[in-house]
Amino acid sequence: MTEVVIAGIGQTSVGEKWEVSLRELAFYAIEQALEDSGGLNPQALYVGNMLAPQISRQAQLGTLIADFAGMNGIEAVTIEAAGASGGAALRSGFLAVSSGLVDVVLVVGVEKFMDQVGSVIDSALATAIDSDYEAVHGLTLTAQAAMLMRRYIYEFNTPRSAFAAFPLTAHANGVANPNAMFRKAIKPETYERAGIVSDPINMFDVAPNADGAAAVILTRKDLLPSGFPHPFIRIAGSSLVTDTLSLHDRPHPLVFHAARVSVERACQQARITPIQMDFFELDDAFSIYALLSLEAAGFAEKGQGWHLSHDNCLGLNGSMPICTMGGSKARGNPGGATGVYQAVEAVMQLRGHAGENQIKDARRAMIQCLGGPASTAATHILETLS
Amino acid sequence: MTEVVIAGIGQTSVGEKWEVSLRELAFYAIEQALEDSGGLNPQALYVGNMLAPQISRQAQLGTLIADFAGMNGIEAVTIEAAGASGGAALRSGFLAVSSGLVDVVLVVGVEKFMDQVGSVIDSALATAIDSDYEAVHGLTLTAQAAMLMRRYIYEFNTPRSAFAAFPLTAHANGVANPNAMFRKAIKPETYERAGIVSDPINMFDVAPNADGAAAVILTRKDLLPSGFPHPFIRIAGSSLVTDTLSLHDRPHPLVFHAARVSVERACQQARITPIQMDFFELDDAFSIYALLSLEAAGFAEKGQGWHLSHDNCLGLNGSMPICTMGGSKARGNPGGATGVYQAVEAVMQLRGHAGENQIKDARRAMIQCLGGPASTAATHILETLS
Repeated sequence: MTEVVIAGIGQTSVGEKWEVSLRELAFYAIEQALEDSGGLNPQALYVGNMLAPQISRQAQLGTLIADFAGMNGIEAVTIEAAGASGGAALRSGFLAVSSGLVDVVLVVGVEKFMDQVGSVIDSALATAIDSDYEAVHGLTLTAQAAMLMRRYIYEFNTPRSAFAAFPLTAHANGVANPNAMFRKAIKPETYERAGIVSDPINMFDVAPNADGAAAVILTRKDLLPSGFPHPFIRIAGSSLVTDTLSLHDRPHPLVFHAARVSVERACQQARITPIQMDFFELDDAFSIYALLSLEAAGFAEKGQGWHLSHDNCLGLNGSMPICTMGGSKARGNPGGATGVYQAVEAVMQLRGHAGENQIKDARRAMIQCLGGPASTAATHILETLS
Repeated sequence: MTEVVIAGIGQTSVGEKWEVSLRELAFYAIEQALEDSGGLNPQALYVGNMLAPQISRQAQLGTLIADFAGMNGIEAVTIEAAGASGGAALRSGFLAVSSGLVDVVLVVGVEKFMDQVGSVIDSALATAIDSDYEAVHGLTLTAQAAMLMRRYIYEFNTPRSAFAAFPLTAHANGVANPNAMFRKAIKPETYERAGIVSDPINMFDVAPNADGAAAVILTRKDLLPSGFPHPFIRIAGSSLVTDTLSLHDRPHPLVFHAARVSVERACQQARITPIQMDFFELDDAFSIYALLSLEAAGFAEKGQGWHLSHDNCLGLNGSMPICTMGGSKARGNPGGATGVYQAVEAVMQLRGHAGENQIKDARRAMIQCLGGPASTAATHILETLS
């Protein structure tokens, strides 16, 4: 079995980058990742992106970015799976290196919302749900998440305040992340008083759309030079699983089935169980996504996930820390780049370079990003090689 | 080295399919491919598509199509590289099977232009060129190809009639293809009299945008049952190469450099030379693309490719037949599905099932599709295993 390792990481800060173009944004992350890898030469580029053809009127990003980043001629394509695009690109890179046919792969997640405004963005995001059966009726991703949250509250008699733990944890962790969009902790009262976006989702239950790019370099362990400057971090498990696209086609809308199966497969490959992870970078595009992801991963029974927030297990010193660098809520949600940000942040933790947010003795991480309400789920397990 | 074989093929007819949805179109091709494979069970789906998020307001096609085709839960993503999307998806499938981590892969190319009309389609297609430096000035793919063609005529003193061979060959071959959009041969006079689309490109120098879906099933040879009903056809070579996205950034705009390198790499992997191919399914989205592809593949020197048309080497009985089932010109141009159509058509030839269009003793095929003017080039070599 080929040992695929993450040999370089890079990221831009996340935010509203009106002054930076899509290609520049990707380049900044790539530049860092190449330097961090000690000068590896990628032969292939997988770009995780969700919206560029719609928002920036630009397709063929692989070619655009490879050329702009000075890697003219290399193999380069775009991988799209809505919000799971970054994780899907990572998976493609993993498969390419595993094949033995490509030695060094560059995976870039890039998203630029700020080439457009408001309704254009909402409409673009709605292409992630079923056009013929959902979006056509005016449903958006946020409205859909609101329906899920309302149903959860109804089914499990959940107090509204139970959801506060997700943004509170994320914002607390974002404070010390220099790349985060929001670096201010929030209080329970702030959450309680926040304006409603799509009832019952309030301003803090939905992550802010933001521009950003992140990059990782994958290679085989045996190809790294003897003086390689970082600990070896391998991809121990990798999986991508889909569900129905439409929410109404699912037997249990409150079960993120694809997320569950994806975790099971990645864990099986890595020969560990979820509980053995030192932290879990989950998809918190909405509070309800984070909650259902925890249940899907087996950290709580169905309908019980909200108790985790009471037990304070989600913080940096908790039993299962999540969103350790702020998650999509505080770091910002760069759409199809999210999965690559998660990989970069997990590697920082595993290298012991997470600064004030460092998880003690972090050796194993699970990262998972979702396309829509787990219509696609990409899960990776990263592990420090001793 | 893992032997990756094409074990099943399917395709819909190509045309204006106002009454069929995107998911249905994909399903029809998949249904055929699954049956043709004798009932293999794919674990992963790679969708080659260029425009669905813009034209049909639908992203996350992997999930949509996997679910609709009754393969709920399998790994599924979309691969985008403009007009090379189909070839890129095939390449992703090849790498996945080569990794040994996925046993059976389904590759689907699907494109549906007819969810929109005229200017929306042109604008969507223009996302394949550089948004910031080309499209913003009003350039379209067709106008760009016109500039290439004009320059070629100027540089090499080429008679306008030299380009006729491409549509004439394609339309002659389309007559006997039941899936072709246009099944009528054309005469040189018809070509000469055709209306101008973008000077010097006339109606026959540009392939018609059309709806269609094609599917192939890939697996490892050793996984096929002993009674497998078809000859074994392996992917002997696979490569994807990029160039600059902008035409103005190239030292020689009339050289399809990525197409050349892609052919070289695929041939190197297959240990054969282009001249050993029995036919060449090239990208004839424009006559000038076909011409430059022939030169890039080494079948003619730079500026000499148009002589091939005089030598009648391109027809079914010629020395290097192209577009044997009609190419994009007569079969129709289903955008990001093109590369998968090429694979299906090549397999038909290699199985000896190409009917009236059968190339005698066909054993080796080269297929190549392009994103824009070879901004991306995906090349595959298919070979009958004896």
